[in-house]
Amino acid sequence: MKVINAGLLGAGTVGSGVYKVATENAEIISKRLGAELRIKRVADIDPNRKRAVKIPKSIFTKDSMEVIKDDSIDIIIELIGGTTVARDYMMEAIKSGKHVVTANKALLAHYGKEIFLAAAENSVEIGFEASVGGGIPVIRAIREGYVANRIESIHGIMNGTTNYILSKMTEEGRSFADVLEQAQKEGYAEADPSFDIDGIDAAHKISILVMLSWGKFFEFESIPVEGIRHITPVDISFAEELGYTIKLLSIAKSHENGLEISVHPALVESHTPLAEVSGAFNAIHIEGDAVGPTMLYGMGAGMMPTASAVVSDVVEIAGNIIHGSPSTSIPKLYNDGDSIKLIPPSELISRFYLRFQVEDRPGVLGHLAGLLGKHGLGIESVIQKGRHIGGGEVPVVIMTHEIEERSLHDALREINEEEISNGNSVFLRIAEI
Amino acid sequence: MKVINAGLLGAGTVGSGVYKVATENAEIISKRLGAELRIKRVADIDPNRKRAVKIPKSIFTKDSMEVIKDDSIDIIIELIGGTTVARDYMMEAIKSGKHVVTANKALLAHYGKEIFLAAAENSVEIGFEASVGGGIPVIRAIREGYVANRIESIHGIMNGTTNYILSKMTEEGRSFADVLEQAQKEGYAEADPSFDIDGIDAAHKISILVMLSWGKFFEFESIPVEGIRHITPVDISFAEELGYTIKLLSIAKSHENGLEISVHPALVESHTPLAEVSGAFNAIHIEGDAVGPTMLYGMGAGMMPTASAVVSDVVEIAGNIIHGSPSTSIPKLYNDGDSIKLIPPSELISRFYLRFQVEDRPGVLGHLAGLLGKHGLGIESVIQKGRHIGGGEVPVVIMTHEIEERSLHDALREINEEEISNGNSVFLRIAEI
Repeated sequence: MKVINAGLLGAGTVGSGVYKVATENAEIISKRLGAELRIKRVADIDPNRKRAVKIPKSIFTKDSMEVIKDDSIDIIIELIGGTTVARDYMMEAIKSGKHVVTANKALLAHYGKEIFLAAAENSVEIGFEASVGGGIPVIRAIREGYVANRIESIHGIMNGTTNYILSKMTEEGRSFADVLEQAQKEGYAEADPSFDIDGIDAAHKISILVMLSWGKFFEFESIPVEGIRHITPVDISFAEELGYTIKLLSIAKSHENGLEISVHPALVESHTPLAEVSGAFNAIHIEGDAVGPTMLYGMGAGMMPTASAVVSDVVEIAGNIIHGSPSTSIPKLYNDGDSIKLIPPSELISRFYLRFQVEDRPGVLGHLAGLLGKHGLGIESVIQKGRHIGGGEVPVVIMTHEIEERSLHDALREINEEEISNGNSVFLRIAEI
Repeated sequence: MKVINAGLLGAGTVGSGVYKVATENAEIISKRLGAELRIKRVADIDPNRKRAVKIPKSIFTKDSMEVIKDDSIDIIIELIGGTTVARDYMMEAIKSGKHVVTANKALLAHYGKEIFLAAAENSVEIGFEASVGGGIPVIRAIREGYVANRIESIHGIMNGTTNYILSKMTEEGRSFADVLEQAQKEGYAEADPSFDIDGIDAAHKISILVMLSWGKFFEFESIPVEGIRHITPVDISFAEELGYTIKLLSIAKSHENGLEISVHPALVESHTPLAEVSGAFNAIHIEGDAVGPTMLYGMGAGMMPTASAVVSDVVEIAGNIIHGSPSTSIPKLYNDGDSIKLIPPSELISRFYLRFQVEDRPGVLGHLAGLLGKHGLGIESVIQKGRHIGGGEVPVVIMTHEIEERSLHDALREINEEEISNGNSVFLRIAEI
């Protein structure tokens, strides 16, 4: 039986998972592939650290270049992470004519254009199923399953940490800080959680799905990103009362005047498939012009789910090597999106959830409505509650009709300066899925 | 730009959808494929029937063999349906060295082995993404996305008609017959609905996913199949009270002593992703040893979703033709599953929902519990309701612990013969997903 050799750069959690699944399921993989798949070399700065699987010392090296330069290795699995050495090694591998499989979303979101162009030039494949949605085969779904479709929209819960935190806050009515602390203790959030909770990770992922769907990497810095630090149990509970669940969404949506890309917490209609995705799970809701609405759901992170996706790419590339077919996916993927334009955030249109803390006296709601109306914001529904005896502050929650974000901001600016409000108005977008 | 020609057999609803998406999205498809995809000939017994898309008269023929024998055509799209002429044409196409794309689940479930072996012998591909789950890319997910996994279980809502009927019954408390009649009027059910409501269609589909996951087609007749005709609003409502939703499930599950395959209505825990799938939607919950639990959701039927899947296969095969790579998927798929055995239905283990109509007098529940206990059935919970004044019949609902089906049937046989019951006990399985 023919043997295809792969080399692994980075034997941390996911790297160990890759070695584990490739060895433990070697028989079933070789039956499906029609060849033996072997992880021949492993590079890691610490060969001795404790791992979930025993990797023979004999295949370890501390030098990634040794693996990249090994002529018997066809596929390099990059699981170092980050955008510094990982980038260098990936470019070296590509230039050495090696196919590359990676889970590195940050690297692709920032340097995807450079990487794909280099891969096309060197006739090698880049496998990146593991970069979005962990084990969920969303890359294949878009690239192959929906290949006949114009993709109309993507709404994804693509970060497990934030979904875990929001789910806990929703179920238990606890504060963000409180749940974050617990999540850190339980290993659901990193010691420095900002990458997750500020939406950066979710933005890396939508950037990759946008490239697949619309053929272009947009400048990463041009994507508006908002995290979940400001989400409170009060807003979660008002949203629930209105029939919505708050989720951190990665959104890409085709409009007549261009493409909307953004990451922000949003109100999602409750009891819909996406709203029901709880805990550390991920789900990506994709709508195509022929296929209609679809959703893919699963574990968006973790050792074995991510390893499952990594090995699926290695097997696919190994199959192409065996059957002598050249690199086929790169031209399919990356075509620089022709003239497609990003819609500036201020021009995005949405319905909004607003919460104001206002003085509890007659006429305040009318005054508020007047100020909103002045900026073109129509009111769909209002909740006013918890009237204190003898004044004080009360929350007023307003759901607006659709409006451009810039008008909302104009209105909020004026309201926050008014005497009637405490200047801390809250706004959240309502997702139309 | 290179041109790949396909020929279409059967221009009914899905066939028209294929022509529509292939022409309307031709530009985006050719950009992704790197070649032009052309539906060059269309065979249909009635070229003049009213269609959702205009197909030029010049490419029509009434003779499928004319399309199959056209040397300029590389890919035959079989959308005739059924297992008679469709089978003949498919075998002719394979023997003529044409790749075949089909949505024909009945044909694959019954003659898949013959078809795949013939395809392997003739080095052609069989694309069948459209045969399960309409536009949902479940074939690709299992074949490629989860290629590194041992598949542990599949639980699918794979028939839109029955899910539509059960959803309506659940939402509106209406009877099966009543909702079926409405579904027929609205086009959600066929004039002869037995294929759908008796679970045959759902069984065809699980048979295909079993082949993909475990490498073997089992004799179609060996799969136990139960439809939804006997489901009543009373049981739906009791199930709801117990925290469950009734769904028609296609199940395949790996056990130590073999493989469980079955189609039956089952109680699914409410507020889980699968339970929330309503209306004509489909969803397939798949668990792999590495990837963990996943779910794919979308429209399981209909002109455009099914066409989306058909064209995705045509594009994939066209890509292989362009890049000169030979047939790769057949050996991956079909390996005759080695020694894997089907577990006989009577040996399957499950928790059960039972409903008895019993005389309303003291001691009846105790007597019932005694009879169940005699056959090893442990009781998890009981609902006894609606006690009439002065006797009469009352429903008793019992949830059992896990037990072999044969013991359940023994118990029910004995209970149905007893004076205390009216002989019409109801049992439903509880799904463990």
